Amino acid sequence: MMKSGMIEVINPNGSVEMTQSLADSLNHNADTQSLRFHYCKDSPPSIEGFSDGTKAAYHLTELVTQLESDGSSAKGYVVACFDDTGVDAAREVSSKPVIGIGEAAMKCATYLGNSFVVMTTLQRSVPIIKRNIANYGLNAHCAAVIASDIPVLSLDCDPEAYERILEKAQTALSQFHGEVLILGCAGMSHWQKKLQEELGVPVIDGMQAAIAMVGALSGIGLSTSKICSYALPEKKQLAE
Amino acid sequence: MMKSGMIEVINPNGSVEMTQSLADSLNHNADTQSLRFHYCKDSPPSIEGFSDGTKAAYHLTELVTQLESDGSSAKGYVVACFDDTGVDAAREVSSKPVIGIGEAAMKCATYLGNSFVVMTTLQRSVPIIKRNIANYGLNAHCAAVIASDIPVLSLDCDPEAYERILEKAQTALSQFHGEVLILGCAGMSHWQKKLQEELGVPVIDGMQAAIAMVGALSGIGLSTSKICSYALPEKKQLAE
Amino acid sequence: MMKSGMIEVINPNGSVEMTQSLADSLNHNADTQSLRFHYCKDSPPSIEGFSDGTKAAYHLTELVTQLESDGSSAKGYVVACFDDTGVDAAREVSSKPVIGIGEAAMKCATYLGNSFVVMTTLQRSVPIIKRNIANYGLNAHCAAVIASDIPVLSLDCDPEAYERILEKAQTALSQFHGEVLILGCAGMSHWQKKLQEELGVPVIDGMQAAIAMVGALSGIGLSTSKICSYALPEKKQLAE
Amino acid sequence: MMKSGMIEVINPNGSVEMTQSLADSLNHNADTQSLRFHYCKDSPPSIEGFSDGTKAAYHLTELVTQLESDGSSAKGYVVACFDDTGVDAAREVSSKPVIGIGEAAMKCATYLGNSFVVMTTLQRSVPIIKRNIANYGLNAHCAAVIASDIPVLSLDCDPEAYERILEKAQTALSQFHGEVLILGCAGMSHWQKKLQEELGVPVIDGMQAAIAMVGALSGIGLSTSKICSYALPEKKQLAE
Amino acid sequence: MMKSGMIEVINPNGSVEMTQSLADSLNHNADTQSLRFHYCKDSPPSIEGFSDGTKAAYHLTELVTQLESDGSSAKGYVVACFDDTGVDAAREVSSKPVIGIGEAAMKCATYLGNSFVVMTTLQRSVPIIKRNIANYGLNAHCAAVIASDIPVLSLDCDPEAYERILEKAQTALSQFHGEVLILGCAGMSHWQKKLQEELGVPVIDGMQAAIAMVGALSGIGLSTSKICSYALPEKKQLAE
Amino acid sequence: MMKSGMIEVINPNGSVEMTQSLADSLNHNADTQSLRFHYCKDSPPSIEGFSDGTKAAYHLTELVTQLESDGSSAKGYVVACFDDTGVDAAREVSSKPVIGIGEAAMKCATYLGNSFVVMTTLQRSVPIIKRNIANYGLNAHCAAVIASDIPVLSLDCDPEAYERILEKAQTALSQFHGEVLILGCAGMSHWQKKLQEELGVPVIDGMQAAIAMVGALSGIGLSTSKICSYALPEKKQLAE
Repeated sequence: MMKSGMIEVINPNGSVEMTQSLADSLNHNADTQSLRFHYCKDSPPSIEGFSDGTKAAYHLTELVTQLESDGSSAKGYVVACFDDTGVDAAREVSSKPVIGIGEAAMKCATYLGNSFVVMTTLQRSVPIIKRNIANYGLNAHCAAVIASDIPVLSLDCDPEAYERILEKAQTALSQFHGEVLILGCAGMSHWQKKLQEELGVPVIDGMQAAIAMVGALSGIGLSTSKICSYALPEKKQLAE
Repeated sequence: MMKSGMIEVINPNGSVEMTQSLADSLNHNADTQSLRFHYCKDSPPSIEGFSDGTKAAYHLTELVTQLESDGSSAKGYVVACFDDTGVDAAREVSSKPVIGIGEAAMKCATYLGNSFVVMTTLQRSVPIIKRNIANYGLNAHCAAVIASDIPVLSLDCDPEAYERILEKAQTALSQFHGEVLILGCAGMSHWQKKLQEELGVPVIDGMQAAIAMVGALSGIGLSTSKICSYALPEKKQLAE
Repeated sequence: MMKSGMIEVINPNGSVEMTQSLADSLNHNADTQSLRFHYCKDSPPSIEGFSDGTKAAYHLTELVTQLESDGSSAKGYVVACFDDTGVDAAREVSSKPVIGIGEAAMKCATYLGNSFVVMTTLQRSVPIIKRNIANYGLNAHCAAVIASDIPVLSLDCDPEAYERILEKAQTALSQFHGEVLILGCAGMSHWQKKLQEELGVPVIDGMQAAIAMVGALSGIGLSTSKICSYALPEKKQLAE
Repeated sequence: MMKSGMIEVINPNGSVEMTQSLADSLNHNADTQSLRFHYCKDSPPSIEGFSDGTKAAYHLTELVTQLESDGSSAKGYVVACFDDTGVDAAREVSSKPVIGIGEAAMKCATYLGNSFVVMTTLQRSVPIIKRNIANYGLNAHCAAVIASDIPVLSLDCDPEAYERILEKAQTALSQFHGEVLILGCAGMSHWQKKLQEELGVPVIDGMQAAIAMVGALSGIGLSTSKICSYALPEKKQLAE
Repeated sequence: MMKSGMIEVINPNGSVEMTQSLADSLNHNADTQSLRFHYCKDSPPSIEGFSDGTKAAYHLTELVTQLESDGSSAKGYVVACFDDTGVDAAREVSSKPVIGIGEAAMKCATYLGNSFVVMTTLQRSVPIIKRNIANYGLNAHCAAVIASDIPVLSLDCDPEAYERILEKAQTALSQFHGEVLILGCAGMSHWQKKLQEELGVPVIDGMQAAIAMVGALSGIGLSTSKICSYALPEKKQLAE
Repeated sequence: MMKSGMIEVINPNGSVEMTQSLADSLNHNADTQSLRFHYCKDSPPSIEGFSDGTKAAYHLTELVTQLESDGSSAKGYVVACFDDTGVDAAREVSSKPVIGIGEAAMKCATYLGNSFVVMTTLQRSVPIIKRNIANYGLNAHCAAVIASDIPVLSLDCDPEAYERILEKAQTALSQFHGEVLILGCAGMSHWQKKLQEELGVPVIDGMQAAIAMVGALSGIGLSTSKICSYALPEKKQLAE
């Protein structure tokens, strides 16, 4: 049963394990927001590149449409993929706030420092993230987007993953004069606190940032504009 | 049966009538390229907004993947939606050139004049097109993006559609000092020649432009880069 | 006495009446955050232009420095001037989040629509706000910055102010295809709800947005980066 | 005698040898377009810097004007200098498509990958090419512009030139995550195929790209806009 | 005979009358700089569009090269065409400061106000000026570029020219919130003072601005960098 | 007593020694402008970061206001801090030209080369200078902003300072293909000539550049626009 006032957190990929791990990690931390977790069972198990993203966006949009037609009384939606795939379409089919973890993380970073470094997984995701950064207007704030070369699904099982990411982050922050580190994949969420302590700079987990943004916008009575670009889809007038 | 050297023209929407109309119009004109037309039967009948686009991108990607696994010997693909939905994903799953009609039309326009006006259908498509224009780096070349307020599916059946578009185009070209007109929807393709004669400026139909671009790139032996962002999708290493 | 967990809301101008009015309006609405209000008694009574802003920034920075040296246990600071004057300096002298109402309002707007209209007071503030918009990377999201020509200190006492602003907002939203309205002065805060109902688009009051942002960032354990540009001021090594 | 349907390929420099070499190389490859080659005998023998470019632009414009007044029935013009010098003026004096090899190469590259590397000859040409890249709106697509430090006129006679360029290209593609290589000088045209095979990324020769673009635009009935910036030069009304 | 310390003022067009008129107007005003005037007798009598500009750039570069080889001891060069045609090439062939009147006028304007309006002659010059504005980085400062539709050579003989320009300027300054007016053609120089008095905003004549800039740079010992892009042209190594 | 025609040079920091040193250095060089030097005794002794800058801007604005109300007949004002702190406010309270040394140096650099390197003191100043560069529209001209890591107040007393800066400058110019060096702190002014000789590129001292700019603008009768953003501050209409 869905509780009024919850936030729907949708992992647009198809990995039930990763979704469960996110739920465990976040329910442990969160004291102010109730969360309900979803995943998209027909999506690829991780989102690495444009075609993964296209599939995930499709299933995410279907799921949000379904939740809306079921009369979800949630405060809003979090899209748990750093590429923010499907966020625009989800905004269109709901009037509640819909926030992607990439957008939330990067915009929050700009309140805390003049430049951020994004640590993503594979190099192929870098151009996708950079295009988002340009679309969000954050080119001047982005010091670098760095790939750890550890695939999403190895983040949990590779025993050296944490150390490698810590080291790469230290090097990049120093080389590019980064002031804030952003974790560029939901699969790194559980390392946020530890990295922040070791690096001595704010480390932003997009999951927490996006949940906080939905709570904040909802709390002050704001919702997605239904004028023009995020208006509900048109009814098609088919010729007979 | 598929002929070697054809171009696969994919209408990512679900309208068989519109696809047939495109085929009729283009086969009539084209003397140098052989074309094979497809549509995406599970897509919305027209693409007006982000969620339509997300669905269409999904079905387009599935179709290109299928054609590739069937061993298509086509020269390349044309994506027949001015929003260029799904083009990036299609580039990822094929090594042949994949060209969207929006991108082709707008880049061709820059060879012919210093500023262009795009005439689209509904206002809700304007922010989508403007985001593409920014991503393609064409802000300085775009004089205006104008909506005719005639939905895609009424373009053929509204008897006043042509006159309205002609008048809106004249006004916009004059007001914004546009030097080239771009038809912002495949459904206007058949008016290209007539509008060009009446307006006295180059009028670009993205269908013809994209077909010409695939032919041109293929003709000089160029194909999509398989390094980094358009590499074939990763094989997922699932934990057991 | 200061309560732990409060947010310090600083009006950088010198108007006690405006500050009281803000406090009345916000304490009425806010259910989740405790607020403590301040004003800068040596600042100009309103901030309209660069020299007003320079004075206000100075007094704001002094006040934040004082609160910090008094050991404030607040969650963070809100700077209640839409020009975001002094925000960078305040970030430097505190490690808590410091959020200006202009930055918060405009960044929140980007989660809700593809374009916003800012309604400010005097035309002379427009270039200041536009420069901030450029610095925040929001040029592509800003449909227009409009001046009502009603000075800050007349917002409360001009009986026609509300109607004039409503009408100007309607016109601008329609003309520039704005999807979200932003109130470009703390003195319009109390109209947010009414305007939102009448206009049918999200209307953002920077006061509420900035308070929500401080609460959100603080709630997930994020604070201002003390590396590089917002590091505490240097101790000067004076030659003897 | 001039054949209808040819493309006029103009080398704006004064080197008959380089022009002959281009003709040999391209006539060998081209199966779909007939080409007529020209050079500008009063131009500098190579174009390296602004004053070379200014002279070449002048002679190019004179030559196009002459060909037009001779009633050339060509499909259009290719300007065979990667700096695209004189292209705007040539567009003004003809209504046929006029395409520079730099513009064609770089715009074609954007259809094939998200980032390109340009390999030019001397460092002094880099700022010229970068300015063009900015004017064409391609900053976000350009990973790097690299100088081989081999002057144009040594490309053919320096036995180590090919190896040096191959090595520099490999390093730059890897370091800057380039997905496409662009040959930044017509004098490297004949290496396109070999480099493409050895590097494993698309390698674009602007000569082939520009010829293909003229053919493509001409084939779909498009010509230079004669409204506003590329209108034929004004008749001067001299005071008597 | 050339006096040491003069500034060479070169009108790149071929109009001796216009050059004489500039000389009369400026020698009357100037109290601090000695000027020597030149024109380019083989250039078009006015510069309106790209091909005029290409010719003028050529003759300008030849003239500066000649003056340099004659051992000119001038402080520097002013290029008296608002399109700044040939300025880059002239910088290459001299080590003295070379300043175009467009660049000088627009950069000086940014010291005096947050936005400027440029009043040029014909609409066809607008895209050329806008491209320069983009290259100089002044997009954010440019409120508008307006054409008076009075050709250069009619500025002096059209009795209504002044009134028309005054009226167009007033309208544009008000509509676009311009704070400074820039005269976009050397032929309007003599109206600077009168327009400034009547309009109540700074009015900048590029001739005076460029002369002042050459004097200023020369006065503090600065000259054109001879490293990289403005290095003297290469000696060509011709194969034998 | 103030002489008509002087330029008021205001060091916005509180260091009398540095101000005296500037006066000594500049009065020695300057032959065409009379200068009167000021400092802001309540400002921090050096300006390193945002809060120093905010304090200095305040005291600078107070001083300019005082000089104006004293009826200063100066030609204009120079703000002797490379961060250009307070320049906008000073422009508002005076109608004379007000020029910051950062803005003057960087805009002068663009007349002399296609790219400049700024050598500043501490890394924390880099984001401030980069924001100014973006606001001035000079991103495309800036090759790099480099910190010497020598604090302002050590520039004079650190015996190795000059050598360190020379070496860092050489490296940066070579690595980033810089064509002009800019001294990013008034405290380096006296090294301009020596560095220029040793480096072989133009080296710009903002002090000399700004003084020259005030002289130039004043000499041709230009002053700050009093329309809109730099209009004199509003009289506040306080409710009774």
